[in-house]
Amino acid sequence: MAPTLHPPLEETTRFLHEQIPLTRAMEVKVESYAGGELTLTAPLEPNHNHLGTAFGGSLSAIATLAGYSLLWLLLDDRSAHIVIRESAIQYHHPVRSVIRAICRTPDAGSVASFKTAFEKAGKARLTLHTVIVEDGRTCVEFSGVFVALR
Amino acid sequence: MAPTLHPPLEETTRFLHEQIPLTRAMEVKVESYAGGELTLTAPLEPNHNHLGTAFGGSLSAIATLAGYSLLWLLLDDRSAHIVIRESAIQYHHPVRSVIRAICRTPDAGSVASFKTAFEKAGKARLTLHTVIVEDGRTCVEFSGVFVALR
Repeated sequence: MAPTLHPPLEETTRFLHEQIPLTRAMEVKVESYAGGELTLTAPLEPNHNHLGTAFGGSLSAIATLAGYSLLWLLLDDRSAHIVIRESAIQYHHPVRSVIRAICRTPDAGSVASFKTAFEKAGKARLTLHTVIVEDGRTCVEFSGVFVALR
Repeated sequence: MAPTLHPPLEETTRFLHEQIPLTRAMEVKVESYAGGELTLTAPLEPNHNHLGTAFGGSLSAIATLAGYSLLWLLLDDRSAHIVIRESAIQYHHPVRSVIRAICRTPDAGSVASFKTAFEKAGKARLTLHTVIVEDGRTCVEFSGVFVALR
């Protein structure tokens, strides 16, 4: 499926670049948001390590950003503050070219419970999973607990 | 104790800046290595998020770098490649000023086993813990499994 770019995605990229300066240094972009999957990309050049592959810190940061951005798009409430509470990441294989982080929307029940809790209590948490894939191979798996606060 | 700066620390900062460009954007510096504790710092300005506190991705990246750098100093073997296999991080409190990440050398037995395994097999793994502290409070706890390869 060709990436679908529409104003909310460009707005999300612009929001990230304006509000989180490291995303400019990393050259992070929102590539697509389709079928419940949000994809962020970043080129290798500003994100490489001493071995010429992607730096673990960049991989962790883009996976965090993918979760954060998906939640921002799901919630669509500018009064919400979204923060990360905890995360775990596994590095299975080095990433050798473009970093592509994909965060999938959880099942509809989890999203509905999250939105209801946020509406009622002004606070809700959701666990999100991000994978970083290259040539059809899962190189990195990330799981993060995000909290939305009014 | 006043920070002790000697050539290996300046060399480590220079190595990070030369080999991992994101560390220049983050303005990471090796502050001290004393009593078995390695301290890295980074200013808030290039590492802030949309709430004006430290970006989770920057916190995760500097914690990873602290572990990586400590292992580099412990091993003191330029033929070694050091990579991170997995990590977990908990964000307890926001960081509002300078980011200060402290990685402690594990107990002597673990370090000796790690060095022996690396000498014999050319491959060894070690779990390292990093904390990010501000005003005497632990804001972030990080645990990472690092692997050294010849």
